[in-house]
Amino acid sequence: MTPEEFRAAAHELVDWVADYRLGVADRPVQSVLRPGQVRSRMPAHAPAEPQPLAELVTMLNEAVVPGITQTQSPGFYGWFPSNAALASVLGDHVSSGVAALGITWQSAPALTEVEQVVTEWLRELCGLSDAWRGAIQDTASTGTLVALLAARERASGMSIDGGGLQACPAPLVVYSSAHCHSSVEKAVLLAGFGRDNLRHVEVDPVTYALRPESLRAAMAADLAAGRVPAAVVAAIGTTGTTAMDPVREMCVVAAEFGAWVHVDAAMAGSAMLLPECRHLFDGVELADSLVWNPHKWMGTILDCSLLYVRDVDHLVACMSTTPPYLRSQADDDVVQFKDWGIPLGRRFRALKLWFHLHLDGVQAIRQRLRRDLAHAAWLAEAVAAEPGWRVLAPVQLQTVCLRHEPEGLTGAELDRHTLAWADAVNASGKAFVSPSVLDGRWMVRVSIGAEATERADVEALWALLRETALSP
Amino acid sequence: MTPEEFRAAAHELVDWVADYRLGVADRPVQSVLRPGQVRSRMPAHAPAEPQPLAELVTMLNEAVVPGITQTQSPGFYGWFPSNAALASVLGDHVSSGVAALGITWQSAPALTEVEQVVTEWLRELCGLSDAWRGAIQDTASTGTLVALLAARERASGMSIDGGGLQACPAPLVVYSSAHCHSSVEKAVLLAGFGRDNLRHVEVDPVTYALRPESLRAAMAADLAAGRVPAAVVAAIGTTGTTAMDPVREMCVVAAEFGAWVHVDAAMAGSAMLLPECRHLFDGVELADSLVWNPHKWMGTILDCSLLYVRDVDHLVACMSTTPPYLRSQADDDVVQFKDWGIPLGRRFRALKLWFHLHLDGVQAIRQRLRRDLAHAAWLAEAVAAEPGWRVLAPVQLQTVCLRHEPEGLTGAELDRHTLAWADAVNASGKAFVSPSVLDGRWMVRVSIGAEATERADVEALWALLRETALSP
Repeated sequence: MTPEEFRAAAHELVDWVADYRLGVADRPVQSVLRPGQVRSRMPAHAPAEPQPLAELVTMLNEAVVPGITQTQSPGFYGWFPSNAALASVLGDHVSSGVAALGITWQSAPALTEVEQVVTEWLRELCGLSDAWRGAIQDTASTGTLVALLAARERASGMSIDGGGLQACPAPLVVYSSAHCHSSVEKAVLLAGFGRDNLRHVEVDPVTYALRPESLRAAMAADLAAGRVPAAVVAAIGTTGTTAMDPVREMCVVAAEFGAWVHVDAAMAGSAMLLPECRHLFDGVELADSLVWNPHKWMGTILDCSLLYVRDVDHLVACMSTTPPYLRSQADDDVVQFKDWGIPLGRRFRALKLWFHLHLDGVQAIRQRLRRDLAHAAWLAEAVAAEPGWRVLAPVQLQTVCLRHEPEGLTGAELDRHTLAWADAVNASGKAFVSPSVLDGRWMVRVSIGAEATERADVEALWALLRETALSP
Repeated sequence: MTPEEFRAAAHELVDWVADYRLGVADRPVQSVLRPGQVRSRMPAHAPAEPQPLAELVTMLNEAVVPGITQTQSPGFYGWFPSNAALASVLGDHVSSGVAALGITWQSAPALTEVEQVVTEWLRELCGLSDAWRGAIQDTASTGTLVALLAARERASGMSIDGGGLQACPAPLVVYSSAHCHSSVEKAVLLAGFGRDNLRHVEVDPVTYALRPESLRAAMAADLAAGRVPAAVVAAIGTTGTTAMDPVREMCVVAAEFGAWVHVDAAMAGSAMLLPECRHLFDGVELADSLVWNPHKWMGTILDCSLLYVRDVDHLVACMSTTPPYLRSQADDDVVQFKDWGIPLGRRFRALKLWFHLHLDGVQAIRQRLRRDLAHAAWLAEAVAAEPGWRVLAPVQLQTVCLRHEPEGLTGAELDRHTLAWADAVNASGKAFVSPSVLDGRWMVRVSIGAEATERADVEALWALLRETALSP
């Protein structure tokens, strides 16, 4: 395809994207397709000859768009806000267009340096001291894995340079609350610690925050048994209820045992942009690593997860390999982001952050986050005031965990009711919520914060929930 | 930013990208910026208020474009072809525009199913049997890490479900040639095997291919010493010289020890599309996993690396975590790509492969690959025929390793000469090549295969090399 052919096709697709975004509120929020329906629409073999763009556009309209859950819809309250601000989409377009190859500083100095600048901007906006340095990872799953690898190597005295984790004399142990994200368990397993060496520390029954005294007891017990407390993962904003683990106290406990502290603020990290929320992150400065995702609530399009660390030298010692064909004269003066994560080749992801912040500005982003906090507070109050309904966890930010508990309905019967009306809400196409389990019982998470969601949408949601729960 | 504001800005940027691509041949191939020059152009703090697009465009022109090495230039012969076919860029644009969230099948059925379809298309085009299933990873570094994690778990009897790698009674060992990519060493270290448990097996002094009899001896020695041969990494196309490890024989040896075989064909995998090259991959069907990158020579824009495995159930057992909020009724009927790799959230990367194959067609891609093979053969012949010049390794595909060896110049003096003229070639802005080390001496790798490179460009390069080497 020549640049002129690209120009014509890209103009057409820009209009397609703009029209799609204009119409997203009118689509069913939940994908309406059954397993296999998209596949069955596609050719069995790759085409030998060039095919017309029009065919792709037809497929986009008939299979792709109906085949995704509309995260950009005002009716999206699922999982977590997964905003893709159009300003950041522009940055992504340019990134694809220039197709820079990020393998070393030399391969694309601008890719490296813009990433340095925007991660510095966000560090400052989050109120982190300049002891921290950040890099863009694809997701928090990867950032947490990288952090736990660094923790593993610190606890094992750089076992990678010898016999590896398998040569460690005493088992290394990782601690988190049972409410932490599944990516923590995954990272523990992939890093080789083993499921037996992941401790799920008790949480407070009301706030669902990890109990520091239980953490201390668990670490002391492991130490007494000849094991090595290696890392603690604190969740600032658990996935289930946005519970806030007490980071300061956890860091104090971890320090007693020399353990690494990693903070997972994937969703809630956006709240660090708001001075009035900063107290929720009290003590974060004492941690060793922190991951948060602008690609969630803040709205820089996926994949844009930030991993901040304090000891860059240690991180680089764990992640660096430099074969001769990647050496250059600039090596001593520059940052090599390949040594801050797993992949060697990197896209120019900093452009989407840069475009987003430059074109929207920080104040507008902050205003939107505040709007969402107010929506959640309003909904929580409405739910709490309604007979037969319950708010199940403190509303710390923009997630409201709720249940309809009709007179006399308990146990498995209540679970069936909850899942029935949640499914009916999703099947309506008007809104999408995520059922989840809390204290062994199904509940419904309403995660507010889609860029398009206004107060009227939340009011309509609450009416829909009540109506549906009465006759699912 | 509203959809209409996006529409206007995106049209402007489409023209910017098309114009950039039209003019890329006229730019210096190597970035001309010094460390810090891009940073120094950017504001110290994120803007509070929205800023004009025009400012971004100015920065793109003055800092970003001069700040990248032009991988899309006909004069790009560095590292490896890093093509970003404009048809695939269109797919990337749409992916950003629809902003699908790939965390489960349910979150975006189309994202999952289009990925199934295009990985099937490419499996078939590569001549792999339908015993293989593929998924898109960001890079081969990640794919190789995932493969070695699966290998680790097979060799350790699923240690993740118990005490982890640290509880394994005998050290697990990984084997590759010393010519394998740095990502193999990195994956070995990150997976916890330890540097002591990575064996660099001897290679043939002429072909630089791993010697199977040396592999067998190394594995037998480890077994005799109480260690466990866990995994073998075969390179089909090493980074240095595109050497072809003998996969069939390596698989036979590995099978004797029950070791996993992972094939790294990151760059050379594109040659599997050509029936006449398929013999280079003889025996690949016997391996356990294979990674190759359409985002290199084939030209689907980064990040688009394919990981194929034969035992999907084992891979999923190693990588799967499913918390309640990700469960859905469709779980039993669908593929969950989150369990095929590290990240939970995934972009709709299949779109770029689909657009690329659909709009360009397979025949045109094959023709381009054949063109590049012919260019490399021509250059190798020219170099070999020129007094004072030497081709240093068999030209298996599109990489020519060469050196100018003037009468009487040896050792460190020859190294200085090589680096001097290679740097001068790159400083000219007309072409970009990668110096590297072979058998302890610097040489120059000419990696042919930029989409824009035609025969006349390769002829001009050869003239430039000769001219520059005579007076660097």
